[in-house]
Amino acid sequence: MWDGVSLLCFELISMAPTEDKQEVAEELMAEKRSISTIVIIIAMQTEALPLVNKFQLKEDRDSVFPKGVPWVRYCGTYKDLNINIIWPGKDTVLGVDSVGTVSASLVTYASIQALQPDLIINAGTAGVRSFQAKGASVGDIFLASDVAFHDRRIPIPVFDLYGVGLRQALSTPNLLKTLNLKAGKLSTGDSLDTSPQDEASIISNHATVKDMEGAAVAYVADLLKVPAIFVKAITDIVDGDKPTAEEFLQNLAAVTAALDQAVTEVVDFINGKCLSDL
Amino acid sequence: MWDGVSLLCFELISMAPTEDKQEVAEELMAEKRSISTIVIIIAMQTEALPLVNKFQLKEDRDSVFPKGVPWVRYCGTYKDLNINIIWPGKDTVLGVDSVGTVSASLVTYASIQALQPDLIINAGTAGVRSFQAKGASVGDIFLASDVAFHDRRIPIPVFDLYGVGLRQALSTPNLLKTLNLKAGKLSTGDSLDTSPQDEASIISNHATVKDMEGAAVAYVADLLKVPAIFVKAITDIVDGDKPTAEEFLQNLAAVTAALDQAVTEVVDFINGKCLSDL
Repeated sequence: MWDGVSLLCFELISMAPTEDKQEVAEELMAEKRSISTIVIIIAMQTEALPLVNKFQLKEDRDSVFPKGVPWVRYCGTYKDLNINIIWPGKDTVLGVDSVGTVSASLVTYASIQALQPDLIINAGTAGVRSFQAKGASVGDIFLASDVAFHDRRIPIPVFDLYGVGLRQALSTPNLLKTLNLKAGKLSTGDSLDTSPQDEASIISNHATVKDMEGAAVAYVADLLKVPAIFVKAITDIVDGDKPTAEEFLQNLAAVTAALDQAVTEVVDFINGKCLSDL
Repeated sequence: MWDGVSLLCFELISMAPTEDKQEVAEELMAEKRSISTIVIIIAMQTEALPLVNKFQLKEDRDSVFPKGVPWVRYCGTYKDLNINIIWPGKDTVLGVDSVGTVSASLVTYASIQALQPDLIINAGTAGVRSFQAKGASVGDIFLASDVAFHDRRIPIPVFDLYGVGLRQALSTPNLLKTLNLKAGKLSTGDSLDTSPQDEASIISNHATVKDMEGAAVAYVADLLKVPAIFVKAITDIVDGDKPTAEEFLQNLAAVTAALDQAVTEVVDFINGKCLSDL
């Protein structure tokens, strides 16, 4: 006897053109299979290391990445999961964390190619717009519903939408509810501060949360058909009185602890489940 | 008997720490070897296709790139060179050219990994700042001396420099002089328009030319130690009276012809030479 989901799978496969049937079948089977390998993309070492310790991961010396890049993979087994924390590393010239969309897209691409994960988690600190997120405060944890860019303005029809680059996060209603996380739209740009043009685009994106990597991770994950979720801990109020850089640095350590606690809970929730259970 | 360059090579190798000696030797040998494989990164199909025809390249069907990505490789032999024109393709959802830094960095990375080129040429249309480039006009061809970002503002010490991401282009004094190209600094951002903050950063970068890919190509090429040059044809005056998008679209076809002529001359000049001859 077939359950409802299997019946739905069968109907969707039957409806697909012949050449797409295998792909649809594979995608539906992946949704029903327990998640095995996850890649967690984290831009800053400060954010990554407590999780590396928590999951007892080891730095991969015989790296899956090419010679010369600063990207670091920490890997190991935690419960039933193969966990890979990928940190883009320190800039080879300047020694600071390789933040932003270029590094995030490169490590997402290289990690998917090397590790074929079932799920990508992009975790990090972020700003929040208090106007949009009434009652939100520093330390809150958001799970993004969708992700877009706010600093790619191309005022030519259709190119404008390409610039915004809206992508959906994997829908995870059970995760959101069980862990009591906040839901919100995420907007990404390569600047820590917010220009008036950025602000207008963030409003146009209906975004609550602002980061520097999410939309790039979402773009690459979507390109290579790997589901992705975005766990963001709030360090600063984007439209508040304090300068972003000052507030960010003041709150980074405390908020990182909240982020790592949240990511641990997310990983514990994921363990043993399939994508469609999230 | 040793010539002066070989002697200099020997001295530089002798001075390097033991573990770096092989690398230094390889780099110096590469400079003395004829250029064999080049990768030309071009963001728009309109810019790429005339060159594909000119060099009689074929689209690579059994692609070096992973399944699902829109990236296109055109390849073939022209004179003594293996030429690869890499175009990031049409966005899989929206059907417009995949312009900007995320796609440019991904195709640069994937091309270097797959093809191990001796040289990367990033060619494309660009804007010019008339204030900086007195007498410059639409259709002019610039060769960038260095490349930086103008839309990655991170006002934290050292991170600010990381955001700017200044990289030197390969020095090519003979190419510049022989082809009578204009020299200038290139500044890159993901927007076609220029906000006041972008403008301030472009000025701070001392940049004459503004594009949407160069600094991302430069970042990845530098990361993987492949020399890169930047050939940019002017479609619009950034600080002029006309809206950038309008001027860009009006001039795109005519300027593309000038760009393709220039790239052909650059490739003809490169043929049979080694890096240190450029």
